[in-house]
Amino acid sequence: MKTKSKIVGGNFLEDFYLGQIIKHSTPRTITDGDAAVYISLTGARHSLHSSEILANELGYSKRPIDDFLLFNIAFGKTVPDISLNAVANLGYAEVQFFEPVYSGDTVHCESIVIGIKENASGVAGVVYVRSTCFNQNGNAVLTWVRWVMVKKRDHAANISTRHIPDLMTSVPSNKISVPSRIKDQETLGRIFEANGSQIIWEDFSVDEIILHPGGITIEDSDHMLATRLYQNNARAHFDAKLMAGSAHGKRLVYGGHIISICRALSFEGLDNSLSVSAINSGKHMNPTYSGDTIYCFTKVIEKIKIFGRSDVGAIRLGTIGIKNMSPEEFFDSKYENCQNKNNENIVLDIDYTTIFPRKGRSN
Amino acid sequence: MKTKSKIVGGNFLEDFYLGQIIKHSTPRTITDGDAAVYISLTGARHSLHSSEILANELGYSKRPIDDFLLFNIAFGKTVPDISLNAVANLGYAEVQFFEPVYSGDTVHCESIVIGIKENASGVAGVVYVRSTCFNQNGNAVLTWVRWVMVKKRDHAANISTRHIPDLMTSVPSNKISVPSRIKDQETLGRIFEANGSQIIWEDFSVDEIILHPGGITIEDSDHMLATRLYQNNARAHFDAKLMAGSAHGKRLVYGGHIISICRALSFEGLDNSLSVSAINSGKHMNPTYSGDTIYCFTKVIEKIKIFGRSDVGAIRLGTIGIKNMSPEEFFDSKYENCQNKNNENIVLDIDYTTIFPRKGRSN
Amino acid sequence: MKTKSKIVGGNFLEDFYLGQIIKHSTPRTITDGDAAVYISLTGARHSLHSSEILANELGYSKRPIDDFLLFNIAFGKTVPDISLNAVANLGYAEVQFFEPVYSGDTVHCESIVIGIKENASGVAGVVYVRSTCFNQNGNAVLTWVRWVMVKKRDHAANISTRHIPDLMTSVPSNKISVPSRIKDQETLGRIFEANGSQIIWEDFSVDEIILHPGGITIEDSDHMLATRLYQNNARAHFDAKLMAGSAHGKRLVYGGHIISICRALSFEGLDNSLSVSAINSGKHMNPTYSGDTIYCFTKVIEKIKIFGRSDVGAIRLGTIGIKNMSPEEFFDSKYENCQNKNNENIVLDIDYTTIFPRKGRSN
Repeated sequence: MKTKSKIVGGNFLEDFYLGQIIKHSTPRTITDGDAAVYISLTGARHSLHSSEILANELGYSKRPIDDFLLFNIAFGKTVPDISLNAVANLGYAEVQFFEPVYSGDTVHCESIVIGIKENASGVAGVVYVRSTCFNQNGNAVLTWVRWVMVKKRDHAANISTRHIPDLMTSVPSNKISVPSRIKDQETLGRIFEANGSQIIWEDFSVDEIILHPGGITIEDSDHMLATRLYQNNARAHFDAKLMAGSAHGKRLVYGGHIISICRALSFEGLDNSLSVSAINSGKHMNPTYSGDTIYCFTKVIEKIKIFGRSDVGAIRLGTIGIKNMSPEEFFDSKYENCQNKNNENIVLDIDYTTIFPRKGRSN
Repeated sequence: MKTKSKIVGGNFLEDFYLGQIIKHSTPRTITDGDAAVYISLTGARHSLHSSEILANELGYSKRPIDDFLLFNIAFGKTVPDISLNAVANLGYAEVQFFEPVYSGDTVHCESIVIGIKENASGVAGVVYVRSTCFNQNGNAVLTWVRWVMVKKRDHAANISTRHIPDLMTSVPSNKISVPSRIKDQETLGRIFEANGSQIIWEDFSVDEIILHPGGITIEDSDHMLATRLYQNNARAHFDAKLMAGSAHGKRLVYGGHIISICRALSFEGLDNSLSVSAINSGKHMNPTYSGDTIYCFTKVIEKIKIFGRSDVGAIRLGTIGIKNMSPEEFFDSKYENCQNKNNENIVLDIDYTTIFPRKGRSN
Repeated sequence: MKTKSKIVGGNFLEDFYLGQIIKHSTPRTITDGDAAVYISLTGARHSLHSSEILANELGYSKRPIDDFLLFNIAFGKTVPDISLNAVANLGYAEVQFFEPVYSGDTVHCESIVIGIKENASGVAGVVYVRSTCFNQNGNAVLTWVRWVMVKKRDHAANISTRHIPDLMTSVPSNKISVPSRIKDQETLGRIFEANGSQIIWEDFSVDEIILHPGGITIEDSDHMLATRLYQNNARAHFDAKLMAGSAHGKRLVYGGHIISICRALSFEGLDNSLSVSAINSGKHMNPTYSGDTIYCFTKVIEKIKIFGRSDVGAIRLGTIGIKNMSPEEFFDSKYENCQNKNNENIVLDIDYTTIFPRKGRSN
């Protein structure tokens, strides 16, 4: 008696319906241990997440968990229900970080289906979900929309719903969460010292491009350790035998690891970026495999003043992750191609909003 | 003046005697850091170890340390004395988990020699030991028997003792430790939500076989990180130069890592397995090397009611770890061979007892 | 508008001047998570850092952070300012460990330039810095001198300063910090049990050589995880594409990882070494790459009595790290070459002072 009936195998296109609420499994207590493993995986250096002392100075009770560590853990919880049978993770939008999460907090997630659209082929379709991550007090700490191409279980199934949600191109400035508070010049000085840079909000110009100098070559152990840390069980990242039979021919690096690597690399140039408030949009443009070297560059998209705050401001940044070509080399030779986003070296195109110190400060 | 006199080189067959008590070195404070690294190495998702909130709800003061993380740390302590000169780790039996271990607890181990048997060849023999792991209060948290084939230092040495201990084929049901308590329907609902499944004790049938769908390809970094986390210093796992000269030709993956990987993969199908009470028997059937992909399937061996408890029951499971062949493919083509356990794809045969929620609950 | 103006690119030879004080970025709260990752990377087993119980017994409020974990984290902080443009890290001296650092402490570092010497070639030169690491109370926990060969930005730049500092060949015995206190015979017995050895200070003889039996083969993931844990951003360790164009042809293993691996391997033979008080000198003799297997042996250089203490004594040890040749094989065939330090198998030559229990104890 052999059975697969005990396996919760993930949803297919015909399992989703508009307004469907899905409570995701695997609540997670996030700890200093996770923060340490994350630093080991990414080399993250932004001081707010590295130093309890600086975090206290900026009004946090403890070091907040790195925004992208939280994002990846939260994302992982949605995989078994949303994307286990996905062909591709197409994009993110309206990602908002609310309250900080601290070591010892326990998070869980739920999603609501906000859009469904069958492909012309009839063998798959796109599902849009809004997912929200809550802490142990029931407060939302993070929300995001993503859309994925999901297979149909039965090609003959009729998908009557066709709804594409209206998504904001960016999180509005009045919705940007800013937990940091820079109380005086002395605190500002400590930020400068902690991050090794005096470059602040006023120093950035719209359309300016920053070439981050570092690069990290990714090994199979690295991305599997990361993906397992997030309890993300998507098979494509772990099973070389399965993937040998796929179009990729080998294990795929989880896209969220690329986001984390690019965020860490962008410390050189965005040193004083304090926290991440929002991801306005994000797309994984091409796959990354073991052996690929990841670099990135960032374009300043918009400078945003925050109502009632002269100590900090927001900046909307477009970070482009590239593989196997240094940012200089890439930028010089291929920026035209980059613009139309068809370049095979581009692996990530993420538009996010982050908080920087400003010259003026609230008193 | 060069000397090896400072090296405690591990025991050989002639160093062991019946009733010998060995206190193992390297007491270890287990922390949230270890729990985080363990998740990163295995992708473990059982909620009792992932969520402090669920653990509290089930009557634990904190998230208990994952049973197999504890087992592997405890096992590692015995290696320098028991198996540093082992040819093979032949099997486990009578493994019992008593009290939960929490972050911050400090454990140490000791062993007693319970059996010795020289091989016909006269160059090695089998040693049986019962090892016990204690917490800082001196309470036993885990005990196990294992037997290993150990080399003789001197082939001419006379091994007069020949004693094979009587081992139980399974830990008796009245000795099964059950720290969880499911106080009401609401708690049961939280377990279902946390693990993403409503399949309980009553839903399993003896002889039922569950094919777990995931697979993990193991890299050298992965298993070395795991084995070092356990402070297990067996050379075969770390030294590629040494192993190039062995019959294996390369580094061996530590068997305990395979157990942990199979336990994590079996979450899909055994989602509501709460804690592990016992390992009735365990054998590493074939070696695993870097590049091998590990899968597993599980057979229900026995369903055990726990005296005085209607909220939870025990299930005795037989999990077979296989390499480089999906469970479906393996099961279809080779189950006959599997039965006689000579199949080269089988790497692990473990028979363990775990706790599941039941429909009826104590009030 | 593409710019590199936001990148703090590290200093070149002409940027340094005698007496210059550099405050390093990235303060770091060190946690049990870092300690767990460190054990996973190295297999470290010295009980003082493994067991809170033993640490308490020796007078520490908690398990102190492993000395070399602290050293590597502190070292990492100096890289962006001191050695990002380094050709080579030439050596260490006068490394002193003061107060223990505990989980939860936040450390930061600063350096003072104490020597500058242009090379005859005129394209680079050597910079000597004394770096000091402080905890959140402003107490120095660690200080060290290192010298690095740094490129000139502009080959035509005139380097008028030429000063080579006088460095001590070893940290004087009256400056050796000894936080441990062995209060009685019972405590001594616990150390013996915890480390699995009864070999104490009195048992070592000057010039004695100990061949440590273990070896660890290093993979790219291993050393990158370690180097990122230390937030060390030197490109040579991470960027395979960059390094393919260098004389090395591939990623270099961070030298501090080799120190940590050798310290961990030397547990077998130096089991009762409690804490590290000083590194008198250290040199990375040859590069290590992924795939290399690291071994080591240790020579007893000096036995040092500590004023007013009969419970512990210091021993000055010379540990030689070797690659791809077992210590026995190396020692037998090449020790003559080893003496002149030109041997291509030698990767590390470190002279450090560590604390051992003594027979006599303070009461």
